[in-house]
This record gives sequence, C-alpha cells and structure tokens, in this order.
Amino acid sequence: MINDLFLKACHRQHTYRTPVWMMRQAGRYLPEYRAVREKTDFLTLCKTPELAAEVTIQPVEILSVDAAIIFSDILVVPEAMGMELIVEEGSGGPRFPHPLRTTNDIDNIQILDPTKKLKFVLDALSLTKKILAGRVPLIGFSGSPWTLASYMVEGHGSKNFRFIKELIYNEPKIAHKLLDKLARSVALYLKAQIEAGAQAVQIFDTWGGILTQDAFHEFSLYYIEQIVNELKSTDTPVIVFCKDCGHSLNKISATGCHAIGLDWSIDIGTARNLIGDTTAIQGNMDPVILYSKPERIRYEVIQILKKYGNGNGHIFNLGHGILPDIPVDHAKEFINAVKEESIAFHS
Amino acid sequence: MINDLFLKACHRQHTYRTPVWMMRQAGRYLPEYRAVREKTDFLTLCKTPELAAEVTIQPVEILSVDAAIIFSDILVVPEAMGMELIVEEGSGGPRFPHPLRTTNDIDNIQILDPTKKLKFVLDALSLTKKILAGRVPLIGFSGSPWTLASYMVEGHGSKNFRFIKELIYNEPKIAHKLLDKLARSVALYLKAQIEAGAQAVQIFDTWGGILTQDAFHEFSLYYIEQIVNELKSTDTPVIVFCKDCGHSLNKISATGCHAIGLDWSIDIGTARNLIGDTTAIQGNMDPVILYSKPERIRYEVIQILKKYGNGNGHIFNLGHGILPDIPVDHAKEFINAVKEESIAFHS
Repeated sequence: MINDLFLKACHRQHTYRTPVWMMRQAGRYLPEYRAVREKTDFLTLCKTPELAAEVTIQPVEILSVDAAIIFSDILVVPEAMGMELIVEEGSGGPRFPHPLRTTNDIDNIQILDPTKKLKFVLDALSLTKKILAGRVPLIGFSGSPWTLASYMVEGHGSKNFRFIKELIYNEPKIAHKLLDKLARSVALYLKAQIEAGAQAVQIFDTWGGILTQDAFHEFSLYYIEQIVNELKSTDTPVIVFCKDCGHSLNKISATGCHAIGLDWSIDIGTARNLIGDTTAIQGNMDPVILYSKPERIRYEVIQILKKYGNGNGHIFNLGHGILPDIPVDHAKEFINAVKEESIAFHS
Repeated sequence: MINDLFLKACHRQHTYRTPVWMMRQAGRYLPEYRAVREKTDFLTLCKTPELAAEVTIQPVEILSVDAAIIFSDILVVPEAMGMELIVEEGSGGPRFPHPLRTTNDIDNIQILDPTKKLKFVLDALSLTKKILAGRVPLIGFSGSPWTLASYMVEGHGSKNFRFIKELIYNEPKIAHKLLDKLARSVALYLKAQIEAGAQAVQIFDTWGGILTQDAFHEFSLYYIEQIVNELKSTDTPVIVFCKDCGHSLNKISATGCHAIGLDWSIDIGTARNLIGDTTAIQGNMDPVILYSKPERIRYEVIQILKKYGNGNGHIFNLGHGILPDIPVDHAKEFINAVKEESIAFHS
C-alpha cells in the first residue's frame, strides 16, 4: 500500500496529515465520468465491472483523493433480492414499480446471495483493486437495512415516508421481519465485498434521520449493530454514516464501528467531544460550500480542521455526496486544502 | 378567555392538562377547508379576512384544539416587500419568478409596512378574535428572516439551497443586508399582529436546519433573537420553531423566547433536560404517525407525555404541519388523547 493514510485514520493511528475523499466522488461533476455515461446507462455502468472500475479510479487519478469507493448503487441490493428496479434518466430518481406493501410481498423477499446475485459488484471490486495496485485503499459499501427498507416499501425517494412509517407503527413485527432479512443480506454482502478486495466498508443510513430517536434505535441502529458485529471477524474498518442522526452519536459509536460519518449539521468538535477517543470521525463539510469561491472553500476546510483539533482519527469528507454540477477546480481545491492545511494538526 | 391553557403553558404556569394544537391545523385534511378552497384560490383565501377567519376557526370547532393560528402563508411577507409571488395549484408549491440574485435585487427590497401592505392579515386577526370571543387564544406567525431569505433567493423550495448558500459563503455582507431588512420587517409585522389581536406569535424557521451550526447561529438565530428582543415590550409569548436544529436548543432558549417548537427528531425528555425550566416546549409528534391506527396514535401521545414528564410548560403539537390526507378521525384521536392522557402528568 503506497498511501494508507485513510486506513490508518480509520484505526485512529498516527498520520502526518488528514486523509480525504468525497462521497459520490465518481460522479457527474467529472467530465470523464460524463463521457462514460454518454455511452452507457446507469445500471449497465453498475453492472459492467470494467466500466465500474474505470469510473471508480477516475477521482483517484484526477483529484488524488486518499481512497477509492467502488462505483455502485445501494438499490442493486433490493433488485438482487427479487425486486424490479427502474432507473430512467431525468425521471426523478430510481424506483421500484412494485413496492412492498403487503405481508406477502415481504415474505417473498429472498435473503441475498451476493456471490450469485451481485457478482458484478464483487468482480468490479477485484478488478479495481488490481488496477489501483495499492495506490489508495478501496472502500465497499451498502445501504443500511432501514434505508433499503424505506426505498423498498415507498418504491422511490419520498418526502414524508408515509408507507414505511405506517408499516413500523401499525405492523412493527412485519417491519422487523423485513429488516432482519435485510440485515442478514447486508452482512453477507459486505463480507463478500471484503473477500473480493474491499479494505473498508461504509454503511449508508441515508434515511435514519427521518425517524424519532426511539424509532431510529429500534428500526435502524439495532440492525446496523448486528452487521457491525458480523463483520468484526474480518478486522476490516466499518464506517457508519447515519444522515441527520446527530442526536445519537454515542449510540452509533457503541455499535463498535471504527468510524462515524458525520453530515454537516453537527459541529465536528462537539461530535468529537461527545464520542471520545474510541471512534474515528469522517466528515463533515456542507457539500454546497463547493459552489463557493476557492478561497472560501479553503477557509471552511480550515474551520473544520480547527474544530476537530489536533490529533488523529479524522477522515476528511463532505457531509453528503458531491453535487453533480460542482466545478472540478473547486473539488480539487477542497482536496488540496485538506492535504495542505491538515499537516499543522498532526504534530 | 374561556380556555387559556395554551397561554398558561407558554408562561410555564400550572394547568390541569397539557394544551394541544396542530401546525397547519386549518388545512386540506378538513373537508370543511376543502369546501372553502373549491370556491377560491389559496392567495385569495389568505387575502380575504372573512374567509381566512372562517378556516382559522374550523379546527377549533371541529377538533376542539386549544389554540387557533391565523390562516396565512409565510410568503405573503416577501410579496409585501415587493416580490411577485405565484401560487398555482399542483405546480409544486409557491414560487417567486424573479428571485433575488444580485446586490441590486437585494437593495430594491423594501422594509415591510405591515399596516399598509399586509392589512388583510391584520384584519383577519381582528375578525377572528372577535368571532372566537375568547373560546381559545389566537396565534399569529411569521417565517424567520433566514427562511424567508431562502425562498426569496432560491425562488421556491429547494433540495440543496445552492443560491442562498452561495450568497452567505461568497457575499456574507450582502446576505446580512437582506437578513437585517427581513428581521426589521418581521418584527414590525409580528408587532402589528399583536396589536391586531394575536395573543402569541410563532416564528417558523423551516430552513434553519440546512445550515451548519455556525452558519445557523450567524445567519438565522442572530436575527430571530433580534425579533424576540423587539417583541419583549409587548409581553406576548413568542414561540420559536427551528426545524432540524436540535443541536442548538440551548442557544434558541437563550434568545429569550417563551417556548421552543420541537420537531420529532429530538426526544422531548432530552430537550427538556437540556433547556431546563426557563422555556416552555411545544411538540413533538411525528406528523406521519397520524396515518397509523388510532390506538397507535394514542400510544405515541402517551410516550411523549411520559418523556416530557410531570409538570407544566408543555404545549402538545406535531413536530411539523399536519399532512393533507390525514383522516379527520385520526386528528381527533390525537387531540383527544392529549387531553385525556395528560391530566395524569399535571398533579
């Protein structure tokens, strides 16, 4: 491994500077990514290991980020569990035309066999790892059971999440049945990703924050903890990113994950004080700041470095995915600012 | 005043039970409201005091809520400050076709003269107060300067709030110029509402939660505090509702407001411990729970009452507005459950 700053930071080991990568760093803001997408649709890109590897590596070569994250989508999991998935350009996001609405629908959902049904992701990981040749670590990922269940029951992104919430409040046992299947599937999937070459994995709980604290603990975090436990034997860093869940940082840390992903709504210094020195922290610049002037981007990077303070265990990232129309120069300034300004905080 | 439970709770005085009302309680879920709307468009309803008074009083008569909130919209303020506002049915919400994008646009915005430009709101308040005849207190409201500025700069609701964030990060002085005009306007507006009959006022900061903590303090809460200060001489309860700002409850309380509105993401018991006994708390049931079975609605009401615990200073409400397709019977069950179950917590 030539650059292992990211893995060291996951383990809270000493590094000479803060490592940095960006959620959704292989994405539309890169002209090189758009060039690949002009020739292929989104799902074909996900399902073609050579192309997925190509776009995964683009930000490593163009921006010199400190980690690669495999190009894929969280919704390939429900598809591999038996749901039809449709991704149309400019149609307002991916959707499941037959969302889970009855007990029978949920009974019919199969536990995932990742080596059979998501071989294309595992192949993409192996191939990417080979091409990366140790330049930077490779991250695998999955949606959390709760976030996947939300999409599977709603059928698409939602404003109010009426159907999944009706399920958990009216039929909590059936909701738990679905979440249990998903937790077992996600654990198998992440284990398979690690076997295929992922050197760290991130669990994305994009929709944990729509719940009350109690419901978040019962329907989301409980299952994330099960997955973290299942992955302990692999000795691979697990990053848990629960968006809009600043109310439960201690409980997220208590799952035993190696790092907590922070959105921008919580001050990273406050978070560090709350969590203590057990868990690394990844984050947390508001992705919209990347629209600003480069000097302002650098200023905001420095503010976050100061808030985190001296010492190890910080992986710099945005608080959510990079937006599709960010100028590449601004993304570069973000990466470079972290690399240059963070040295002073690692004496 | 026949029922002053709400006002007493704002002042943290003893009541025999917890008062309850719902944000957006005069709305589409009521057939009686839809009947009025069939004959008139949204803005005409806002601007016709007789009709606004009629729908304001509907939930008092149909659901026996403990407070009325004047039917209006936060976006009448930017319109009254010189911006064209368009509200079309089913078009994805209200919008300003000429959003503020230049320094010149912002310079052209006029400080609000509420008695001249929003006389229809003041007339609606006076008329409603007269018709209510003391049955329940009447609440006035305004959007916060930050939330109004977000709409004025974006032109409509937004997912990423690119333009308002570009303004605060690239041109903070110009952003402050706009926010200062808005703070002065909102203070004048709420004072005029109080003079017209409002017995409490609520400041809605719907978009405070899209900011980092620092930016929230600088661009939103600072101006809310100015308004609260301006209203102190009126001796009228001020409720501050900053959605998704659970990270700053202490700072919101420190504005000197009488009550803090809580969304459902924060446990109300945790919030009470954090805030202490200086400020009343309004909230905080997830509005989506009203889709559930009546017995589950009652169960969730009891959970929130237990979390708040014994004593005064709690105004029960939803954590956001009631949704347009909630069955009226479910809303009734919510109101009745609060009234019946809360007595035990006021010994």
